[in-house]
Amino acid sequence: MHAPRELAQAAAGILSRIRARRPRIHCITNAVAQNFTANMLLAAGAVPSMTIAPDEVADFVAQADALLVNLGTMDAERREAIAIAVRAAGDRTPWILDPVFVDRSAPRAAFAAKLVAQRPRAIRLNRAEFLALAGAEPDPAALTRFARGHATVVGLTGDRDIVVDEKRSASIANGDPLMAKVTAMGCAASALVSACLAVEPDAWQATAAGLILIGIAGETAAGDAKGPGTFAAGILDALFRLDEAAVVARAKVSR
Amino acid sequence: MHAPRELAQAAAGILSRIRARRPRIHCITNAVAQNFTANMLLAAGAVPSMTIAPDEVADFVAQADALLVNLGTMDAERREAIAIAVRAAGDRTPWILDPVFVDRSAPRAAFAAKLVAQRPRAIRLNRAEFLALAGAEPDPAALTRFARGHATVVGLTGDRDIVVDEKRSASIANGDPLMAKVTAMGCAASALVSACLAVEPDAWQATAAGLILIGIAGETAAGDAKGPGTFAAGILDALFRLDEAAVVARAKVSR
Amino acid sequence: MHAPRELAQAAAGILSRIRARRPRIHCITNAVAQNFTANMLLAAGAVPSMTIAPDEVADFVAQADALLVNLGTMDAERREAIAIAVRAAGDRTPWILDPVFVDRSAPRAAFAAKLVAQRPRAIRLNRAEFLALAGAEPDPAALTRFARGHATVVGLTGDRDIVVDEKRSASIANGDPLMAKVTAMGCAASALVSACLAVEPDAWQATAAGLILIGIAGETAAGDAKGPGTFAAGILDALFRLDEAAVVARAKVSR
Repeated sequence: MHAPRELAQAAAGILSRIRARRPRIHCITNAVAQNFTANMLLAAGAVPSMTIAPDEVADFVAQADALLVNLGTMDAERREAIAIAVRAAGDRTPWILDPVFVDRSAPRAAFAAKLVAQRPRAIRLNRAEFLALAGAEPDPAALTRFARGHATVVGLTGDRDIVVDEKRSASIANGDPLMAKVTAMGCAASALVSACLAVEPDAWQATAAGLILIGIAGETAAGDAKGPGTFAAGILDALFRLDEAAVVARAKVSR
Repeated sequence: MHAPRELAQAAAGILSRIRARRPRIHCITNAVAQNFTANMLLAAGAVPSMTIAPDEVADFVAQADALLVNLGTMDAERREAIAIAVRAAGDRTPWILDPVFVDRSAPRAAFAAKLVAQRPRAIRLNRAEFLALAGAEPDPAALTRFARGHATVVGLTGDRDIVVDEKRSASIANGDPLMAKVTAMGCAASALVSACLAVEPDAWQATAAGLILIGIAGETAAGDAKGPGTFAAGILDALFRLDEAAVVARAKVSR
Repeated sequence: MHAPRELAQAAAGILSRIRARRPRIHCITNAVAQNFTANMLLAAGAVPSMTIAPDEVADFVAQADALLVNLGTMDAERREAIAIAVRAAGDRTPWILDPVFVDRSAPRAAFAAKLVAQRPRAIRLNRAEFLALAGAEPDPAALTRFARGHATVVGLTGDRDIVVDEKRSASIANGDPLMAKVTAMGCAASALVSACLAVEPDAWQATAAGLILIGIAGETAAGDAKGPGTFAAGILDALFRLDEAAVVARAKVSR
């Protein structure tokens, strides 16, 4: 178990390690999110790659420090690339699943269920997506059961974010309502978690760190923004300039 | 027939309804436009989805309140998705066609002609695209003939926008030259019209409303912009903050 | 041979011609870069198109003044489109190759080598990509040998940019470190070079001009930016407002 303050300090340390090590993150993400995701990773200090070509994705994953799998626009080539990439990642390269809109279509839900069985280190989703994937409302017991059953970490985002593994749980209150007004913000949060997984073996800490960092950056950006357009640029600026001491001071973590 | 002032008031009311109802808009749009389109819809208050996977697009359209079909990057999968989506929309879900660059390639023109025959509620295009699709310059008679012949609304954008159905015509003078310096601005205008179609059954009013709203947002953003980069962010801010009273006051509509 | 000052003047003249002639640039570029690339071309005064559909790409290239071929996300349809586009370009339409990440995968390297043999007017790449493609570190002798052997111009970007053809070499010191913190900046540089190739038959001058212009725009934007988010918008503004006299005054060119 970690005290909230220790989790905030872990997040600051993880940010420092991303900046120092510049981990390579291979992203199979949706077409809407690719540009913003790459920019978020660059702002954090990571190095993104984005190809989905089936004959080269294994090479890219083999050279990556973490893998992001996002289902936002799930065309045939992306599906094939995901299968290859997850196999290439194996147990060596940590990967995160972002089952976007899994509540909207049955083929997507079936595809996501298969991926869950392949042991992502973390899954980031919202309430509707958890309901579709787990068949239950995301109350504490259901979250813990799901995390335990699939040996993974669940990062549930919403008004408060909740990060759960088989034993531990943390609640994060950072963030701003404008984050829901920019497309691909959740996808970018998952990408940031993947960068944290690249430098932190404790997936629960890494997932919490990613959500703390984007939440604090969002709060900073909201202070200067005139709306969602300037906010989208501002959150990249804020993450790029985020000070490790500020992470510890501003993280709003509770059990 | 509507007086210009009534059309401005209708636009304000439509914006209010989008914000209140948060309609779901499924977008099959080109890869260049996806991110900006999603952000424009979010800024207006709508909820975009973007998948083009043939086996799930029907599910997404069935749960959507309007559909956007844009031909900007017309790869094989998008073409298949469009056929399925338009069938799923049927007469129940309003859809708009944006025949981007239909003047540049014969296969694209042929594909667009088939879509026109499937009764989109509205078609938004520019002069060159109308010429390619209708075989005539977009003078008032040709516009009315085309709208009547295809039982649709034509939203012709340019220095002035002209919105025509079989009986009615309106001219809109809102907008700013910087709008032509940001890619996908026309695509975003079509997306905004689709959000208006989701809450307003009169397609002529809805099309005019979409073009009025983006035009006023463009004027607001141009006042603060230092160039097309800050303008692209600024138009999202301006649409997000646009006041219903300002819509009525600032709409430049004539017969 | 050109004196540095002549190259700066050439860059200013090329910018003027892009603004006056508004060349059409067809771009086959990666999904991450499409939006930013189109906006960079619009900011410069060019007119981008982006389709990758195999049955229409030849029509688009036939109507274009230059072609950009970028390997960033190299899916099957893009590969087919590239083959058709390069054939359609032939000797008439200048094209540039941007072999993104050619150092990361063997199929990509093989595909790039075939394209190099089809005589692009220019190739823009970084050190790691040159090493993978040429099998040698990019020292002056290796660059000249490569340019001569393939009858092309090499634009090597990095802390300093080096532009080499079979006889001439120039070094460009414009730019800012923030350029490496925005995704697709190199892709956008290649796109800008393609716009220069559309209006300047001397490919060495055109390549140098593109890199000078984006470098100066980057320096201007960095002065006002709070981080990579505002910088990405700011470089579009700066290019849009860039004054021809400022190009001559601010270009940092040496032999």
